[in-house]
Amino acid sequence: MFMKEVFVMQRVTNCIVIENNHILLLKKPRRGWYAIPGGKMEPGETIQESVVREYWEETALTLENPKLSGVFTFSMYDNDQLETEWMMFTFKATSYQGELTEHCDEGELEWVPIDHIHSLPMAEGDHKIYEYILSASSPVSGAFSYTNEFELIDCRMNDEV
Amino acid sequence: MFMKEVFVMQRVTNCIVIENNHILLLKKPRRGWYAIPGGKMEPGETIQESVVREYWEETALTLENPKLSGVFTFSMYDNDQLETEWMMFTFKATSYQGELTEHCDEGELEWVPIDHIHSLPMAEGDHKIYEYILSASSPVSGAFSYTNEFELIDCRMNDEV
Repeated sequence: MFMKEVFVMQRVTNCIVIENNHILLLKKPRRGWYAIPGGKMEPGETIQESVVREYWEETALTLENPKLSGVFTFSMYDNDQLETEWMMFTFKATSYQGELTEHCDEGELEWVPIDHIHSLPMAEGDHKIYEYILSASSPVSGAFSYTNEFELIDCRMNDEV
Repeated sequence: MFMKEVFVMQRVTNCIVIENNHILLLKKPRRGWYAIPGGKMEPGETIQESVVREYWEETALTLENPKLSGVFTFSMYDNDQLETEWMMFTFKATSYQGELTEHCDEGELEWVPIDHIHSLPMAEGDHKIYEYILSASSPVSGAFSYTNEFELIDCRMNDEV
């Protein structure tokens, strides 16, 4: 089981929900960093099934017509050694059903004006992701390398793919 | 090392190149099944970098402006036991540079008329993938479960995501 936990590649899905020029973000307690709601895919799920389930679990909102907006490769390094790698599938949506939950286990949910996002604390690469995705009309791809302390080593973004 | 080989998730990228109503397919020697050229992502690659490299390695053609058209979850079962899972990223392109190679290590390359594809031998789910992708204008997602003899157990396709 230990080996399995270590080597199964994580696949994460999440979604940028845009409403009245605001995005719903989650402020995570560990570092005080902001992220969009989402989480790990379960075996056998499509990426779309995963993002709808994960978004609902964290926010109680049911996404309507989420559009795939980015596919990202994350590589985590301990010194020069590649430790683990995962994929992230980021969607964009402008409509949903339901009422925002008052309690999320993962942190505080907050609607943030789009033009404030660049000043919020978050993983360095995430700023680039929002910048690219918010202005793209079709999915982008990219790759990010981080230390295991989440310092950005390298990042490449492809234009719309 | 044994454990690592078993549990690292494969990620495959490939591309449907369309020219004059034909698609470039690869007839693989093992089962005589047809597939589109492509192969495994390398660590740290973006999906776009991977598909350009892989397509070039198998065909000597350099894709121009490949567009992500599908993201698929593959689950392989041995009896009722999930054995392994991988992700496939399928692109579509209508232009490329270079001359088609005369020799491909992986099998025979062949331009096939689009309306002949439904009658070719291939993994059962691949027929559904081509059907969906060729008529979609934005990326689709889906999930396929196979036995380790490549018999299709289950398949779900989401509409355009």
